[in-house]
Amino acid sequence: MPSNSSPEPGFARDRFVLPRAPDGGDAVYLAGNSLGAQPRSARAALLSAVDDQWARVGVAGWEECGWWATPQRLGDRVGALVGAAPGQVVVGDSTSVQLFGALIAAARLRPDRGVLLSDAGHFPTDRYLATSVARLTGLELVTGAPPAMAPDAGTAVVAVPAVDFRTGERWDLGAITARAHEAGAVVVADLSHAAGVLPVELDALGVDLAVGCTYKYLNGGPGAPAFAYVAAHHHDALDPPLTGWTGHADPFGMTEAWTPAPGVGRLRVGTPPMLSMLALDGALEVFDGVHLAGVHAASLALGDAFLAALPPAVEVVTPREHARRGGHVAVRVRDADGMCAALARRGVVVDARPPDLLRFGFAAPYVTLDDARTAARELAALLP
Amino acid sequence: MPSNSSPEPGFARDRFVLPRAPDGGDAVYLAGNSLGAQPRSARAALLSAVDDQWARVGVAGWEECGWWATPQRLGDRVGALVGAAPGQVVVGDSTSVQLFGALIAAARLRPDRGVLLSDAGHFPTDRYLATSVARLTGLELVTGAPPAMAPDAGTAVVAVPAVDFRTGERWDLGAITARAHEAGAVVVADLSHAAGVLPVELDALGVDLAVGCTYKYLNGGPGAPAFAYVAAHHHDALDPPLTGWTGHADPFGMTEAWTPAPGVGRLRVGTPPMLSMLALDGALEVFDGVHLAGVHAASLALGDAFLAALPPAVEVVTPREHARRGGHVAVRVRDADGMCAALARRGVVVDARPPDLLRFGFAAPYVTLDDARTAARELAALLP
Repeated sequence: MPSNSSPEPGFARDRFVLPRAPDGGDAVYLAGNSLGAQPRSARAALLSAVDDQWARVGVAGWEECGWWATPQRLGDRVGALVGAAPGQVVVGDSTSVQLFGALIAAARLRPDRGVLLSDAGHFPTDRYLATSVARLTGLELVTGAPPAMAPDAGTAVVAVPAVDFRTGERWDLGAITARAHEAGAVVVADLSHAAGVLPVELDALGVDLAVGCTYKYLNGGPGAPAFAYVAAHHHDALDPPLTGWTGHADPFGMTEAWTPAPGVGRLRVGTPPMLSMLALDGALEVFDGVHLAGVHAASLALGDAFLAALPPAVEVVTPREHARRGGHVAVRVRDADGMCAALARRGVVVDARPPDLLRFGFAAPYVTLDDARTAARELAALLP
Repeated sequence: MPSNSSPEPGFARDRFVLPRAPDGGDAVYLAGNSLGAQPRSARAALLSAVDDQWARVGVAGWEECGWWATPQRLGDRVGALVGAAPGQVVVGDSTSVQLFGALIAAARLRPDRGVLLSDAGHFPTDRYLATSVARLTGLELVTGAPPAMAPDAGTAVVAVPAVDFRTGERWDLGAITARAHEAGAVVVADLSHAAGVLPVELDALGVDLAVGCTYKYLNGGPGAPAFAYVAAHHHDALDPPLTGWTGHADPFGMTEAWTPAPGVGRLRVGTPPMLSMLALDGALEVFDGVHLAGVHAASLALGDAFLAALPPAVEVVTPREHARRGGHVAVRVRDADGMCAALARRGVVVDARPPDLLRFGFAAPYVTLDDARTAARELAALLP
């Protein structure tokens, strides 16, 4: 894949296997905001991990095949896609676990403050874990909509998504971070609906900590391990709660006390699921030499084509302005689950979010303009 | 595999691909206490997950391929191997994460007590996470050797391994549990070095919570997801800290507050790494119809053959009595790392634990009596 800052929609389609439609052909697969399609390179990497590594090298693979270094090596690869210089990202565990660890570690960076301020419309796991963290740490949990958040001198942590999981609205992470920093608070961003579909620029925005998922737009496979970012200037002070042995400065010394590894390595917890990790490793090849600004432009073009082909009566929940759009477009319908199933029968795969939203995910690497228009046409055909 | 309560050592060897020795043949692979060899059925299950499921079904796989139910379905499969009736085990996350959750949930079952009593020789991650949990919950961490532990009316939780990770000594989990219960404490057992190599009988012993790893004797692959057990009578009171969305009673309702799923499902956290999960699913076929008592007898026979072939001067750290032995035998040597490497060059794969232990793992499904004797002979040849 040559360096290409303006890829066309569907620019890497031949590098994917797409789910089948009921007629046996490729589906119009617009569920990449939930589970990305399979890159052929993910399958190849996984087969190599199974046949050349685990089977034939055995336990020596932790050194000889580089498994031990994978959480940080993969972290750097993901980091390059979210604007993080090397040495600030680890991959492993689920987004929920990473978030739990990040929220507590963030709170400990501001031990003199009492409030955890979180997006009221945050993805459920973010809200549930914020509640649990508040209970464990004694913080007060306060929620609000990201644009209206007003952190003050009592705010320890501001927890926000980069893109709203329901509406697809992209928040102004730079402005939110600036406001948080003005008040002396630390930002924990959830990039699950942003990583791989738009440029995030964590370093440039000054975001403190971030987590995100790799099975959506990064196409790592079902339940692919999550990532966590911590800005380098916080590393020395970082005091995470999940003090697993792999985050130890000398993991095989097996010393009495936990001594954090230097840098972001201290965010490693237990032994990571290496087969899932290496599938992700292969999946990321799709993004080699591709700039996320171009991917986002192609994704927005897909969304525009979809919106232009929708009947005017359809209520679109997602902002139409490019600057306020993430990777998916949500429309309001009467029976979201029923409509989702009906579209699937017509070969258009999307997902539904209660109570009444249908989400159309525009993953530019494998979705084409024809796909976007077909989806709008099939939705129109199903509307009363 | 027919039901067989007395399998011979190596009874399933043809169902595995063994790591290669330097001469290109199969290694004498005695590192199954660290990373199990690869069952052919694990590879087959993984390929099916990749080609028939993720690639072709896409996001609908969560329902159509049963991914959503996998943590509990796999939990029941693992549960059957550790003496747990169905509905008490989940699979997912790493052992470290499961342990963190289990320790806090256990402490919350005894809110009026102030002490977390943990094995002083526990695997490092267990010790490090106990320290973190004590800090978060305000419990006092007290450590001691399992046989000498004396829980009292102030003890909330007793945390012990079933088998010592260094010496291979098997602790009397039944006696430890009885003493803990007499004092009114809750037991959290780590079965990492027991699951798949000896019968644990969690239900019969009355163990309260347990965690364990599936990449050792259960052969799930590098970093295969861990499991957590909670005895059914604790389910309704169980109040876990990792309140991820998949442990919600109505995960797709996406309601405001976290309402725990009924039963052990509330221990689910985030989206599990499905490719690694399904590799484990396939790996477990090795144990279909095989009784763990028989597997342990075969493992002990392997250890006996190894011990009998060792020069008498070798210091064996593991107890020789069958009742006190887990799945591996540890011997003390001058330069454990150097000896481990020298054995590997001779085609015998073991592992070293600092400062001076070599561990020989006797995974009966694929290790033969010849392997055990070869290992002793090669070790003898390297000794001064």
